[in-house]
Amino acid sequence: MKNKTAPIGIFDSGIGGLTVAKAVMKALPNEDIIYFGDTARVPYGIKSEETVRRYALEITDFLLKKGVKMILIACNTVSASAKGEIIAKAGKVPVLDVITAGARAAFDQSGHKQIGVIGTLATVHSRAYVSAINEINGGAEVIQKACPMLVPLAEEGWIENEVARQTLQEYLKEFEEYDLDALILGCTHYPLFKEIIPQILHSQRTVVIDSAESIAETSSGKLQELNLLNKGGGKFDCYVSDRPQRFQELAERFLGRKLQDVSVINLS
Amino acid sequence: MKNKTAPIGIFDSGIGGLTVAKAVMKALPNEDIIYFGDTARVPYGIKSEETVRRYALEITDFLLKKGVKMILIACNTVSASAKGEIIAKAGKVPVLDVITAGARAAFDQSGHKQIGVIGTLATVHSRAYVSAINEINGGAEVIQKACPMLVPLAEEGWIENEVARQTLQEYLKEFEEYDLDALILGCTHYPLFKEIIPQILHSQRTVVIDSAESIAETSSGKLQELNLLNKGGGKFDCYVSDRPQRFQELAERFLGRKLQDVSVINLS
Repeated sequence: MKNKTAPIGIFDSGIGGLTVAKAVMKALPNEDIIYFGDTARVPYGIKSEETVRRYALEITDFLLKKGVKMILIACNTVSASAKGEIIAKAGKVPVLDVITAGARAAFDQSGHKQIGVIGTLATVHSRAYVSAINEINGGAEVIQKACPMLVPLAEEGWIENEVARQTLQEYLKEFEEYDLDALILGCTHYPLFKEIIPQILHSQRTVVIDSAESIAETSSGKLQELNLLNKGGGKFDCYVSDRPQRFQELAERFLGRKLQDVSVINLS
Repeated sequence: MKNKTAPIGIFDSGIGGLTVAKAVMKALPNEDIIYFGDTARVPYGIKSEETVRRYALEITDFLLKKGVKMILIACNTVSASAKGEIIAKAGKVPVLDVITAGARAAFDQSGHKQIGVIGTLATVHSRAYVSAINEINGGAEVIQKACPMLVPLAEEGWIENEVARQTLQEYLKEFEEYDLDALILGCTHYPLFKEIIPQILHSQRTVVIDSAESIAETSSGKLQELNLLNKGGGKFDCYVSDRPQRFQELAERFLGRKLQDVSVINLS
């Protein structure tokens, strides 16, 4: 049986998953968190499923050795390609993923009829959100749109300038002919656009689902259910496989606070 | 001694170097070309110099085994980090790189006083163009600007829409206070913006240097000098380490023509 004071493990192909870490810190301020970002091998979205699975299992191994009590897959590509393998490897350690959490939140918070999903090319191509939504709610119509420019925009820090606005206008045009109940932000970078997306969306009643917040809420419920809530933690340990250009600046933008003590480790 | 009918080897971290292949095909239509794009491990710009060197030497090895008579480094990151090691490994096979070629062209075609360079974060950070220009022309003032949004724009096919225009306006603002003699397109993706950059540049007399064209011209001169020009080739063999989403569409946009028979091989 896992210890209540054991950390929660969160991982992503890069630093985008820090938006999930941020949401978990907010929802569960007493939990210790270990984050792993595979910055040496990012992006996963352009790699074969086989390679993504291999990388994801290496990271799972790393987190299990760190003694985590729960694993959050904060990467849409990994959620789409390797969830089953990670659950199998993790054994009794519960595993949650952003796609299932986002799909569930869209169902819980919206009118369930028309759900939009924006994500990277890889996520949209995988149709993982479509499957996850249909599993929960077979009658929903899911409209997907790949938005490959949003990750670089977020990384450039162009969150609400004219370029960001026009780019979103171009992409969200896709949904003009629909009356979306919910729009899922299906990429861990996208919560950075959470403020301006509703300003640009055609329908004002569409609920914007931030899958980082969704998985944070789900994990809170899960820990409660398993009686694994920590009462006194709050530590954050950050591991990356490489320290790219502008890492600190970017990581802090995604995490929403100062970041100290980042360790670089090579898994391969 | 190398055979005249041996192919020219061209490589890049991904598909951007196909703009170099395109320029070489135009300048040297009778040459056979072998292209290698490391699409499984792209982008190099965020990796450590040590890793970039290791990858570049693996590719050099691959091209040498294919019997190439010349190697063109069509990757700015590799040109900046691993040129010396590749030259050493290639022995008698001549090696040209985009940075030296672009710097030389800026010197030959411009007034030599103020030279602008746009490139990725990694290229700008390496200051490789600054060094290369100063070696040729110690008195030149070099003004650099990193433009991280241009690669994703090129890959999205947004070459001359409003988003592209506003993005370039934002980046090229950097040069407003100068009277540039030349602006070097210091990234193999950037030739796709060659038409609209002059429309946005502040000074109308600035010569835009396409380093893909520059290295094609340099390689033509080099083959002539070594008496290695082919009279009857024209074959194009394309190797990549992975076949990412939308590969065909993207590759053809960069190459400027249909692409058949792409082989996927794993070097590592």
